[in-house]
Amino acid sequence: MKSFNSGIIAMTGLLSIGFASQRCAVENKDSNPKMPNFIIIFTDDLGYGDLGVFGHPTIKTPNLDRMAYEGQKWTQFYVGKSVCTPSRAALLTGRLPIRSGMTSDTRRVLFPDSNGGLPPEEITIAAALKTMDYRTAAIGKWHLGHKSPFLPTDHGFDYYYGIPYSNDMDRVAELPGDWITSQIAFAEEEFWEAYNVPLMRNDEIVERPADQRTITKRFTEETVAKIKEYKDEPFFIYLAHSMPHIPLFRSEEFKDASLAGIYGDVIEEIDWSVGRIIETLKEEGLDGNTLVIFTSDNGHWHIFETHGGFGGLLRGAKGGTFEGGMRVPTIFWWPGQIEPGIRMELGTTMDLFPTFCKLADIKLPGDRLYDGYDISPVMFQTGAGQREDVFYYRGTKVFAIRHNSYKAHFLTRDEYGDPTVTTHDPPLLYNLDIDPSEKYNIAGKHPEIIAEIRKVLEDHKSTIIPVENQLEK
Amino acid sequence: MKSFNSGIIAMTGLLSIGFASQRCAVENKDSNPKMPNFIIIFTDDLGYGDLGVFGHPTIKTPNLDRMAYEGQKWTQFYVGKSVCTPSRAALLTGRLPIRSGMTSDTRRVLFPDSNGGLPPEEITIAAALKTMDYRTAAIGKWHLGHKSPFLPTDHGFDYYYGIPYSNDMDRVAELPGDWITSQIAFAEEEFWEAYNVPLMRNDEIVERPADQRTITKRFTEETVAKIKEYKDEPFFIYLAHSMPHIPLFRSEEFKDASLAGIYGDVIEEIDWSVGRIIETLKEEGLDGNTLVIFTSDNGHWHIFETHGGFGGLLRGAKGGTFEGGMRVPTIFWWPGQIEPGIRMELGTTMDLFPTFCKLADIKLPGDRLYDGYDISPVMFQTGAGQREDVFYYRGTKVFAIRHNSYKAHFLTRDEYGDPTVTTHDPPLLYNLDIDPSEKYNIAGKHPEIIAEIRKVLEDHKSTIIPVENQLEK
Repeated sequence: MKSFNSGIIAMTGLLSIGFASQRCAVENKDSNPKMPNFIIIFTDDLGYGDLGVFGHPTIKTPNLDRMAYEGQKWTQFYVGKSVCTPSRAALLTGRLPIRSGMTSDTRRVLFPDSNGGLPPEEITIAAALKTMDYRTAAIGKWHLGHKSPFLPTDHGFDYYYGIPYSNDMDRVAELPGDWITSQIAFAEEEFWEAYNVPLMRNDEIVERPADQRTITKRFTEETVAKIKEYKDEPFFIYLAHSMPHIPLFRSEEFKDASLAGIYGDVIEEIDWSVGRIIETLKEEGLDGNTLVIFTSDNGHWHIFETHGGFGGLLRGAKGGTFEGGMRVPTIFWWPGQIEPGIRMELGTTMDLFPTFCKLADIKLPGDRLYDGYDISPVMFQTGAGQREDVFYYRGTKVFAIRHNSYKAHFLTRDEYGDPTVTTHDPPLLYNLDIDPSEKYNIAGKHPEIIAEIRKVLEDHKSTIIPVENQLEK
Repeated sequence: MKSFNSGIIAMTGLLSIGFASQRCAVENKDSNPKMPNFIIIFTDDLGYGDLGVFGHPTIKTPNLDRMAYEGQKWTQFYVGKSVCTPSRAALLTGRLPIRSGMTSDTRRVLFPDSNGGLPPEEITIAAALKTMDYRTAAIGKWHLGHKSPFLPTDHGFDYYYGIPYSNDMDRVAELPGDWITSQIAFAEEEFWEAYNVPLMRNDEIVERPADQRTITKRFTEETVAKIKEYKDEPFFIYLAHSMPHIPLFRSEEFKDASLAGIYGDVIEEIDWSVGRIIETLKEEGLDGNTLVIFTSDNGHWHIFETHGGFGGLLRGAKGGTFEGGMRVPTIFWWPGQIEPGIRMELGTTMDLFPTFCKLADIKLPGDRLYDGYDISPVMFQTGAGQREDVFYYRGTKVFAIRHNSYKAHFLTRDEYGDPTVTTHDPPLLYNLDIDPSEKYNIAGKHPEIIAEIRKVLEDHKSTIIPVENQLEK
């Protein structure tokens, strides 16, 4: 805990703004009253169609398939934004990135030259759980500020091991060809030093460049070690794999393991990682008391061709506001606690904050707006979901809104490439339950739904309070 | 058996051309030596992405998902052709439709005015199994000739109950709008009599128009009854659902049951049907001795918009030679006999004939070429698959060939609409294991693979013997 500095200030802040601190028993299968553990496995740029259980034909993911079969596959689960930094801010704070200054119209994400980060006054899941004495660890990619006071250890995590930003940053080598061709080529093992990305433990750099050839394996083993270290107390582990973000790397054992090429190898190593974690929980007798959630920070990065993953039947990809950018393959696993099956209710990564708080008997602070809902009634099948809306931002603007089954696109723009923004009036309107591929615009048939969604937009806009932009610093 | 007429002739023919008749025990979980039963559930126009287990987000298919989890999901399983009549001929004969005259450049399928059908000299799975005293029933859509000597009871089936051709034929009503709009509109319940399709029992018409509102339910109950009737003898049931081919109909209980609209309702009733059959097998103690195969006759019929289904991540659809037309969602189920998991080996519906023959200890007739392989080694995980090639025909021409991981398109054409045929020289080349969506043409990089596939094409062409065309009669 030596590097826990401004995190303590944040926690003190929390306690003064109404976090409840009384413990509460959560039922578990052996009737041992103990707070539940939480593990979030957050992948980077994994597409909606990349897993066997989400329909990929040649990428083998038996551990994730089994996790889904024993748990819940959530098919309409969203992120807060379709690129790294803002999506991570949304997940950890339960709030849209527009509220924390973590989204910008000029810079998609934080870069090594950025001076901003997740502001100290933002409360992360880890900081909230600390009020109930959880042990907390962040392992993997952070990307919410690589300088103090923005590091994981500043934000409620007891421990951090990982890379502070994307694995394709700090590039120190050049290859012939355009950016895309080079980034793909750099996945070749001999170029692993082309990216001078640091690997950190707590607030210190312990390796540079991070050896990405073994990074998935090492993040996994750190997670396993932390599970074993924390097992007698309630814990929260946030494992944010840096793969399958390009450049792609995988351990020796996974080289050519997949029919589906290097992208398949990388996903199959992530699948192994999930299996290793689940197996550890079972071995330690923690499976009945640990909620594991597997998801992704945004859709696949399609511009990298066969290094870029798959959106399945969804339209669009990372960076954009069609479904392929923001709907992510999500699995909940908690044997004996949640009814196995497929959940088609709306959910978002921002719902995890209030859900975990509910399960750990923590009252949400009343001084700020949350964009998440407690989804435990859906998870436990004890009630309906409260979520009616999903907001699809691009930078600081709402490009689209999903309202129940319907989605209206007010603005559209290519994910990458052409920066032209097209205004749609009336908006494009799709029924996503019937038309998940966003093919059949039904705006002409449903002016009343468009009117309703326009009202949702106005109401939403009225909740946005201007804050300092962190990505432009 | 009263209507079994020319079928007997066919059988006699079989016996004279070398079918082995000695019984052979097939191991089963209770060590009861008995020939295995076979059930094929064949859907009409079900797309690769239409089931939960193949990645659809809002169509609920818990029975099929469980069937896949208990059995094998085959992710690279193909049909013999991407439209009804030729695909069915391929399934039942184990031979490409070009060999039986069941494909044409001018008529895609058989129509009510057709005088042709599956020739009597062709041997169906049913006729082959009759040599080992199987009880055999065809239930559902036939579409291999609606006049004698082409009916199911002429082709080795003891019993037939179903519609002899597609459910959108014999249209007797008109609605404003183009063909597509009308076909969609006719799914409304009040128009159920718009199609004067007959329902037959054996060789007699028992209802006309067939009441399609309850057709999936009735086909299912007939199947259940036949399982119970045949249970003490080895049996083969071919259940060819006429749904989800447009116009879409479902029973009262499934109206608005699905989030995914009427298309979802229809698939969910098919899922119910599968559950009902599996449950019956379990109740009757037949599950350990019955191989159930679920698949589709071709990809989704995309031109019907939200009545047309989904290809998942595959390109193309029904009628064409991209993957979405010919690769179908396939599940094998045989508890205790086959290792659950995902099978990524190549398979086709034509492989079922030799596989069933192998399992029932029947020697394939030596007087004709088969396009199927015994895939039981893959199914039982006792050996590698023998299939290296898949042929994608359009009419009587080979448009594309898959050779192991690679697919070469020599010719392409829109599925429906523009009839222009485009010649590609060099052919378009895709690695389907890495690029299942057929996006990245790698012809320039692999002339040696193209040369190899050209050789496969020439060798294949040399095996084709001209026969009388049945679709043009």
